[in-house]
Amino acid sequence: MTTRFAKRMEALKASEIREILKVTQRPEVISFAGGLPAPELFPVQALSDVTRKILEEEGTRALQYSTTEGHPPLRSWIAARLAAHGGGRFTADDILVTAGSQQGLDLTGKLFLDEGDVVLCESPTYLGAISAWNVFRPRWVEVPTDDEGMVPEALGQLLGRHPNAKIVYVVPNFQNPSGRTWSLERRRSLMEVADRYDVFVVEDNPYGELRFEGTSLPSIASFDRAGRVISLGTFSKVFCPGLRVGWVAARSPLHEKLVVLKQGADLQTSTLAQMQVARYLAENDLDQDIARLIPVYRERRDAMLEALEKEMPDGVRFTRPTGGLFLWVELPVGVSARTLLDECLRHNVAFVPGGAFFPNGGHEETFRLNYSNMPVDRIREGIRRLASALDQLLLKRDRGMVQPGAEAALSARADQESPD
Amino acid sequence: MTTRFAKRMEALKASEIREILKVTQRPEVISFAGGLPAPELFPVQALSDVTRKILEEEGTRALQYSTTEGHPPLRSWIAARLAAHGGGRFTADDILVTAGSQQGLDLTGKLFLDEGDVVLCESPTYLGAISAWNVFRPRWVEVPTDDEGMVPEALGQLLGRHPNAKIVYVVPNFQNPSGRTWSLERRRSLMEVADRYDVFVVEDNPYGELRFEGTSLPSIASFDRAGRVISLGTFSKVFCPGLRVGWVAARSPLHEKLVVLKQGADLQTSTLAQMQVARYLAENDLDQDIARLIPVYRERRDAMLEALEKEMPDGVRFTRPTGGLFLWVELPVGVSARTLLDECLRHNVAFVPGGAFFPNGGHEETFRLNYSNMPVDRIREGIRRLASALDQLLLKRDRGMVQPGAEAALSARADQESPD
Repeated sequence: MTTRFAKRMEALKASEIREILKVTQRPEVISFAGGLPAPELFPVQALSDVTRKILEEEGTRALQYSTTEGHPPLRSWIAARLAAHGGGRFTADDILVTAGSQQGLDLTGKLFLDEGDVVLCESPTYLGAISAWNVFRPRWVEVPTDDEGMVPEALGQLLGRHPNAKIVYVVPNFQNPSGRTWSLERRRSLMEVADRYDVFVVEDNPYGELRFEGTSLPSIASFDRAGRVISLGTFSKVFCPGLRVGWVAARSPLHEKLVVLKQGADLQTSTLAQMQVARYLAENDLDQDIARLIPVYRERRDAMLEALEKEMPDGVRFTRPTGGLFLWVELPVGVSARTLLDECLRHNVAFVPGGAFFPNGGHEETFRLNYSNMPVDRIREGIRRLASALDQLLLKRDRGMVQPGAEAALSARADQESPD
Repeated sequence: MTTRFAKRMEALKASEIREILKVTQRPEVISFAGGLPAPELFPVQALSDVTRKILEEEGTRALQYSTTEGHPPLRSWIAARLAAHGGGRFTADDILVTAGSQQGLDLTGKLFLDEGDVVLCESPTYLGAISAWNVFRPRWVEVPTDDEGMVPEALGQLLGRHPNAKIVYVVPNFQNPSGRTWSLERRRSLMEVADRYDVFVVEDNPYGELRFEGTSLPSIASFDRAGRVISLGTFSKVFCPGLRVGWVAARSPLHEKLVVLKQGADLQTSTLAQMQVARYLAENDLDQDIARLIPVYRERRDAMLEALEKEMPDGVRFTRPTGGLFLWVELPVGVSARTLLDECLRHNVAFVPGGAFFPNGGHEETFRLNYSNMPVDRIREGIRRLASALDQLLLKRDRGMVQPGAEAALSARADQESPD
């Protein structure tokens, strides 16, 4: 049998994160690899209560087909929340409920991207966007990015050079993977540049409400007059990810097109899941929930930063996020994070090598650490093991005796390197 | 602002069914338009019980991320069910859990279809496949189809003429929209032809378990030795659609590719929904549930057939399905089902004009009736109204005085005609 797949399948490989996650499911592994929220904070009992009520009071409706756009009370809640939090001028009619914000990426890519179209992204950028959009075979252009966000002059130059640029993709709050947050000034100037060059902006904001300190900044969408910002959101990080409920906020005519694409993709998001989220939000105070999450995540971030400061050898740099789930590490030049991962896995500690977050490759000396899913003592122990593995690696390097096994493992991994 | 969408958006319009469904949500409308199962038969209480237990016993796991492939007990159940019901030789490792079988169509299209690739389908074919796949811009070739299924000689000739044919798409049991079921001989010969011409077969089977009489026939997948059949299934029709749980069964290497595509599309199907279905199936007897559904649907089909026989004027033909949710009507030549729909909507009765089910257009004198979602007395009343609207239309036609309003409405609708 000949397997004649579509051309889009040529470069497509499994997400490195999902593959690493399979390895790290053993309980003895201290995993900084996933982006998992802390399950002990999920409001299980309250969700159980609202589910019972929904099924008692309107069970047949909850289990039946419903509209593609989404459950009306949930759409209203989302629009109101965005309005109240500087999320942009969207009405309930602009909201499409999706299967997490990952589906928002898939639908947005379908809407805009022809083969060869240019997507401009932060460098590094979110792995899930790379894997969602690579099926549409775009050309990725990484925009120079510093601690304040994309450098606007560089963005302008690149847009001038790429007239077929379609999308600028950004995660302005506590970015995955870098943990960085855009300054107010950079948000405003991104919108100016996007207007000048007439491109769409996909603003992905899964972590914005998880701010540990300082004050939250208005979204890029809040500066949008033309309706060129598509805003992606999710309940995965402030409520729970297992229900797969997120949204795309986009004004007409983008919204209507996204609805048609959603119809073709899966008809609609689970009626029951949408009603569960809507009723949970109506009967509980999400702000209180978030106020309970924040000190836990802040403590874990602090523990990780302290441990990194204490344990890491000279020449290792890392970001200091003010919210979200991730921080980003740069190793001394010439040290491969994939080799380090091989060593770490032998000591039952895991992370995601940073190369996966650069759509055009390179940056093998970087990696991402997640601090939300492990208690403080495991974080300390994990960073200790990581530092000790790194010390060994540096020692070997300095003695010119990098382990042949690790080299072999490295090149094998490089062959399988995921484009996402 | 210039809206530079992807080329795939040019021909894409909202599904006619979903648009009609919005009109028909008023309670006074007797709707034969949707494909909705009877909500009064949903096992609401039993689902409520298993949900409470899941959240009590393993709540944090149910609300957390899980693997893309799906919940292992659910995958095992599906594989065992297929094996026991002539569904083909699939193991649990071949099952990918999806957001309904609609997502199976999206992923299958992504896997196979480049622009211009040929999809061969029944004539008429399932609207949802047309809307899922049109984004990949295939060329649709409708294969001559009779009451036994596709005509194998015609299929062979068309495959010979189209060497870039990738997929043969079929709904062999109680097809949506025609209600037809393939004979055993036609199933076997489809597999022979597919092997000879080396094409993939997508076998979509949402209704197979809803058989009212006769014995069930083995699937096309059961004749597949090469692993070229992708089998789509769903819990929407035998359990409930609102949870959005379905599956794609496909052997290696197709399965692995579909998993990668699913990762990019939405990471995974709801963990909780999968656990709800799996636990419901473990603690309840689905065969008993189906045995309760069948007499209800059979009675509704009987009521609709009797009413059609009694009420319809000469020259109207309709199918007599032995299962499933739909039957198919052909009006006398020259009578447009869209004009009839306009008239019927004034009398609060609705159906879906058949033109939507032909990817290459035409067949305006056909329409689809759903009988699963209305009680028997409403079915009788609805068919009475439909027949009276048709009588009026035929009378006007015979007097050469087709209502100008209806003509205008028709051409307006034709402009908006959905390609799906």
